[in-house]
Amino acid sequence: MLKYAMIGGGEGAFIGDVHRRAIRFDGRASLVAGSFSRDEGNNIKTGKSLFLDPERVYSSYEELISSEKELDFIVIVTPNNLHYPIAKMCLENRINVVCEKPVTVTLDEALELKKLSEKNKCHFAVTYTYTGYPMVKEMKSLIDEGRLGKLRFVKADCPEAWMAEKVEEMGNRQAQWRADPAQGGKTNCLGDIGIHIENLVSYVTGLKIRKVCAVVDKFVEGRKLDDNAVVMVEYETGAKGLYWLSYIAIGHGNGMKIEIYGSNGSVVWVQEQPNELIYTALNEPSNILKRGAAYLSPLQKENTRLPEGHPEGYYEALSNIYNYFFDELQSKRSPIKDGKYKFPTLKDGVESLLFVKRSLESAENNSCWVEK
Amino acid sequence: MLKYAMIGGGEGAFIGDVHRRAIRFDGRASLVAGSFSRDEGNNIKTGKSLFLDPERVYSSYEELISSEKELDFIVIVTPNNLHYPIAKMCLENRINVVCEKPVTVTLDEALELKKLSEKNKCHFAVTYTYTGYPMVKEMKSLIDEGRLGKLRFVKADCPEAWMAEKVEEMGNRQAQWRADPAQGGKTNCLGDIGIHIENLVSYVTGLKIRKVCAVVDKFVEGRKLDDNAVVMVEYETGAKGLYWLSYIAIGHGNGMKIEIYGSNGSVVWVQEQPNELIYTALNEPSNILKRGAAYLSPLQKENTRLPEGHPEGYYEALSNIYNYFFDELQSKRSPIKDGKYKFPTLKDGVESLLFVKRSLESAENNSCWVEK
Amino acid sequence: MLKYAMIGGGEGAFIGDVHRRAIRFDGRASLVAGSFSRDEGNNIKTGKSLFLDPERVYSSYEELISSEKELDFIVIVTPNNLHYPIAKMCLENRINVVCEKPVTVTLDEALELKKLSEKNKCHFAVTYTYTGYPMVKEMKSLIDEGRLGKLRFVKADCPEAWMAEKVEEMGNRQAQWRADPAQGGKTNCLGDIGIHIENLVSYVTGLKIRKVCAVVDKFVEGRKLDDNAVVMVEYETGAKGLYWLSYIAIGHGNGMKIEIYGSNGSVVWVQEQPNELIYTALNEPSNILKRGAAYLSPLQKENTRLPEGHPEGYYEALSNIYNYFFDELQSKRSPIKDGKYKFPTLKDGVESLLFVKRSLESAENNSCWVEK
Amino acid sequence: MLKYAMIGGGEGAFIGDVHRRAIRFDGRASLVAGSFSRDEGNNIKTGKSLFLDPERVYSSYEELISSEKELDFIVIVTPNNLHYPIAKMCLENRINVVCEKPVTVTLDEALELKKLSEKNKCHFAVTYTYTGYPMVKEMKSLIDEGRLGKLRFVKADCPEAWMAEKVEEMGNRQAQWRADPAQGGKTNCLGDIGIHIENLVSYVTGLKIRKVCAVVDKFVEGRKLDDNAVVMVEYETGAKGLYWLSYIAIGHGNGMKIEIYGSNGSVVWVQEQPNELIYTALNEPSNILKRGAAYLSPLQKENTRLPEGHPEGYYEALSNIYNYFFDELQSKRSPIKDGKYKFPTLKDGVESLLFVKRSLESAENNSCWVEK
Repeated sequence: MLKYAMIGGGEGAFIGDVHRRAIRFDGRASLVAGSFSRDEGNNIKTGKSLFLDPERVYSSYEELISSEKELDFIVIVTPNNLHYPIAKMCLENRINVVCEKPVTVTLDEALELKKLSEKNKCHFAVTYTYTGYPMVKEMKSLIDEGRLGKLRFVKADCPEAWMAEKVEEMGNRQAQWRADPAQGGKTNCLGDIGIHIENLVSYVTGLKIRKVCAVVDKFVEGRKLDDNAVVMVEYETGAKGLYWLSYIAIGHGNGMKIEIYGSNGSVVWVQEQPNELIYTALNEPSNILKRGAAYLSPLQKENTRLPEGHPEGYYEALSNIYNYFFDELQSKRSPIKDGKYKFPTLKDGVESLLFVKRSLESAENNSCWVEK
Repeated sequence: MLKYAMIGGGEGAFIGDVHRRAIRFDGRASLVAGSFSRDEGNNIKTGKSLFLDPERVYSSYEELISSEKELDFIVIVTPNNLHYPIAKMCLENRINVVCEKPVTVTLDEALELKKLSEKNKCHFAVTYTYTGYPMVKEMKSLIDEGRLGKLRFVKADCPEAWMAEKVEEMGNRQAQWRADPAQGGKTNCLGDIGIHIENLVSYVTGLKIRKVCAVVDKFVEGRKLDDNAVVMVEYETGAKGLYWLSYIAIGHGNGMKIEIYGSNGSVVWVQEQPNELIYTALNEPSNILKRGAAYLSPLQKENTRLPEGHPEGYYEALSNIYNYFFDELQSKRSPIKDGKYKFPTLKDGVESLLFVKRSLESAENNSCWVEK
Repeated sequence: MLKYAMIGGGEGAFIGDVHRRAIRFDGRASLVAGSFSRDEGNNIKTGKSLFLDPERVYSSYEELISSEKELDFIVIVTPNNLHYPIAKMCLENRINVVCEKPVTVTLDEALELKKLSEKNKCHFAVTYTYTGYPMVKEMKSLIDEGRLGKLRFVKADCPEAWMAEKVEEMGNRQAQWRADPAQGGKTNCLGDIGIHIENLVSYVTGLKIRKVCAVVDKFVEGRKLDDNAVVMVEYETGAKGLYWLSYIAIGHGNGMKIEIYGSNGSVVWVQEQPNELIYTALNEPSNILKRGAAYLSPLQKENTRLPEGHPEGYYEALSNIYNYFFDELQSKRSPIKDGKYKFPTLKDGVESLLFVKRSLESAENNSCWVEK
Repeated sequence: MLKYAMIGGGEGAFIGDVHRRAIRFDGRASLVAGSFSRDEGNNIKTGKSLFLDPERVYSSYEELISSEKELDFIVIVTPNNLHYPIAKMCLENRINVVCEKPVTVTLDEALELKKLSEKNKCHFAVTYTYTGYPMVKEMKSLIDEGRLGKLRFVKADCPEAWMAEKVEEMGNRQAQWRADPAQGGKTNCLGDIGIHIENLVSYVTGLKIRKVCAVVDKFVEGRKLDDNAVVMVEYETGAKGLYWLSYIAIGHGNGMKIEIYGSNGSVVWVQEQPNELIYTALNEPSNILKRGAAYLSPLQKENTRLPEGHPEGYYEALSNIYNYFFDELQSKRSPIKDGKYKFPTLKDGVESLLFVKRSLESAENNSCWVEK
């Protein structure tokens, strides 16, 4: 069984627990050490609740990385601005990394990590969870098989309601740091969910962005960072895209929806109904594809555990990413070239930050097109 | 009973028949004369099938307008480029007009008709059919009552699949003229369905467009006019909008969908399920409002005929527009000021053409923002 | 143009107006006379609002039938208990009839009318409106083509909420007479919507009922007639059926849903979304068939007017029944054998009443199976 | 951390793996021993893949139970006919048990186990997984709070397609034993999914069945056990129910749908969209309740892990059942009275078997009502 440590993810944090569960799910890796919080009480309590040896619960990430020499990988689930220094130290110590997105706050940091991981031959996964859904894999398979013909137009919506009020002043801790430029960086909504969309579309279609034209808004009065954004995209093939991202879209939990239109067909996937995919061939009735059904692709099958009709969800999607990561670790292969991994990597992290940077540049310049 | 004549709408045409049915529906007006086609065989045959007196079936619209002196109104359902001369002659003869959208091909023509109708005190309806749906009226009522708070973001999609192939070369007559700049004008998809969206959003929200930023595409190889467009909109209040229009969106019949987000709530309406409306108040569960239910607004009630659960559709929407028009004719009121009519008028026709003009200008200038 | 008179359907009645609109829709028949209400004020007012010659607005149906000698048909939309005497007098005068369902209150009356119509060679339509929906026609086509294989199981739900309270004592006139045994007969919910289901299933599948096993309930305290019923059905082929009918199903307007399962496929149709049909072939993904699409059957095409994506509804369904009736009248054919008509007839009316009779008999006998 | 052993669940089996994952999910219990298959090769391989000490992988369940003295509980996931002897031996050795449903093949066996578990003071969970879904908890909360008023009618469908063909002769191992009376007992579809429905309705509503009236069918030619069943139910309060269970319903993966109608409201839950619940109050629009939303009940919150919009599924539902079981084990309380457990127990197992017995008795006796 693989052994890992976690940095971040103390009591009260959200995503750390999600990672721990997703890792447990397939029983391939075991948590052996952690540095969960800079609040030492929280740190110790979290370690205890996870049945860890108290000696392997560290007050600082530096201490953990220096002390733990037998780890297969480290999971980084701290606030965004800490990803970079922690990941850097891991890589310098030749430890494989799984890091939450965005991999860093700035593009330069991400590029540096990428160079370092290549130099020190470390595997590095960035957890764009949505790419792990089985029916997202099916979308990719349909496109790779040419079932949609030449891709023409991509439409991606990501409406959420959670910041429709000024929740950053109503005791919501998630909102506090995300809406604060000092902690969240130069963008909130665009940076947080825009990069999910950018990555998901890129993964599914293989399309590369040539340029973007963006509008970024703050609708809640007095808010310091964006809570709604539109990005028009032109890809290198001449296909076009339209991404809408919102934190003020009352009525939506996580209304992520991907629509891809080609010359011979289309697919539509809705994250809140992740076990379905609508596929339509030209001049034919729409088909409702169901996760787990016998007619689906090998790639989908590889990423699903339950028979049709028994819903899988968000955790399983993240588990799927981990599974490919574990396969790589256990293959004992040397880290491989960009784009050949079956899980998202630093290359994806870099692309996302480039996307955000260009989009902000466009938005700040009267929505001019910014080449990428 | 009111008496009307129709110009256009011979056998094989689409929208003329829709108008005749919508008019018959409430039994308030009766067709007494027509000039249905420039093909005299078709013209005579159509008149006969409609049980008209052959003497009142005219070979030309000029003849009809000159001869028929007792009409309450004339319905114009010819190809777009003929709307202007016919409407002009009607108005010059002080005949009330119902005209299909777009009211004219150019903005200047529309402005001229508007002036003329005011001068000659004629009622003039432009049939933006979608505004007649009962649940569109309910959206308007909810917004007028302030249930959504301050409007922030409008999202309107209008995906259709019908020109995903080069149907203009496959015997589809509708497609032939729409895809031909000589007959369809400077735009196809944007002009045809974009103005429905522009009008519908304007009607429901009362928002006025300040400026637009557009991308217009031709995805089908060799096609002469646009088959896909995105328009980003800024309204005078600072609210923003995003319109997507497509004729290449495989999987959609008429996927018109309107989403309106405010500070206190949202509404979502889908044209293919016109008897429902999703309304969500801030921090509350979404409500599924059903046409005909007792809890709906007086405006909705005024525009519905059947009890909840018995579907109404597209014809009834058009009938609702006619009903308000008939009320006006029968009120014997003098034509009233812009914006006070309960049906769409030349004012709406003008706004639409302005929207198209500005959008094309933006698209042709690298998606710059064009003030309106 | 065909000429008709209407009996019943005065101001304040529901279904008469629905018939008049459905008839107007295609412009093939014209209302020339009527006896709309036994309340003479209402009668006169209704005639006037319909622009009728006052001399042809009669105080009694007897007077109308005796006086009007040039009618192509008479439409009967009175309360149920009057259908029989009026229809009988029409038939005795050799006038073709369109009658709302249930055609009579008792089975014997229906059988008598059937015999009389055959003797006097009259056409007789019973308006089971739901069979007129285009996608119901498509269901029938799929089954007739053998696409479902051997039929196994039929499930039909008809949940409505409108009598979930004791509305018969809250001023609802529809409810008053329906809940009153003196006016409504021996059954309310079962008789009213059960016969729609019985007829619809019979029309679509061709299955004949061998026996039934029923439970009939009154859930609202103090109510005199049933407001909920379940009928288990065995057909002559050995296929089985399950019908659920409810007037206390809060949350439903008219939730009619038909599911038909065969050895090679299934279809599901939901009345509130009448423009869609879900068809699934064995081991294949479900298909969403859309009214108006090119891939549908000739029978569907014959019953649709608008292109895919432009919703049709309840009125159009009734118009479709009238259209086939008009075709028959205009064909000048002699009335034809049972079951050969393209619209529902007295044969269907008889079957429905037999179904109700047997179901009540079962319910009254501890849900024993009652052969039919 | 709790320690458990598993009996059954070797490679190629389905439900054993589901249990192991659901247990891992919260990290509260650890697998320490097993007897996974009577095929010794499979047994050893499975133990190895689960990183177990080979000495704790036993060739027989008897050996396991005799040898392992420190277990907190044993999970039984063998074929149904082995549940009884294994559970009995566990209880005789005072080991707590988690057993898949149906807890035994006969009612008498279940009653015996119940008596034994009470005598020896063992906790015993039966995994009716569907009761663990958060929105099922929400249904229960709404009903317990009286939001539906007096319950009137329950409708539960459970259509599945997987045995629409004679898959038991096409190499499907699941189908082979289920369709074989020697291994599956006297019923297939009714016994397998009927008891899920019986238990789910009972859990959510608290209604107790007074009597049943059933039809049980074999639609696939030559099949030995039922593949479709309808059960009409009368509860002790006078409320009624209707359950439909099918393995031949082409188009459905696991179409479980529960509808509950009361005098003041209704709820509808669809298993394939488990994160939603439709709740409608009398005369109000339907509400779409979303798992994880702030407006939901404490019971729902206690059973959910992710925020609204991030789908949970089947595994999480089973984890929720285990969590309550673990709470009980860790509370060190003595086993408590029937019906006070927060997870399903032998009492539920007994009720289910009684339901199946009575339903079969009714079906075999011409659908007479069988008191329970």
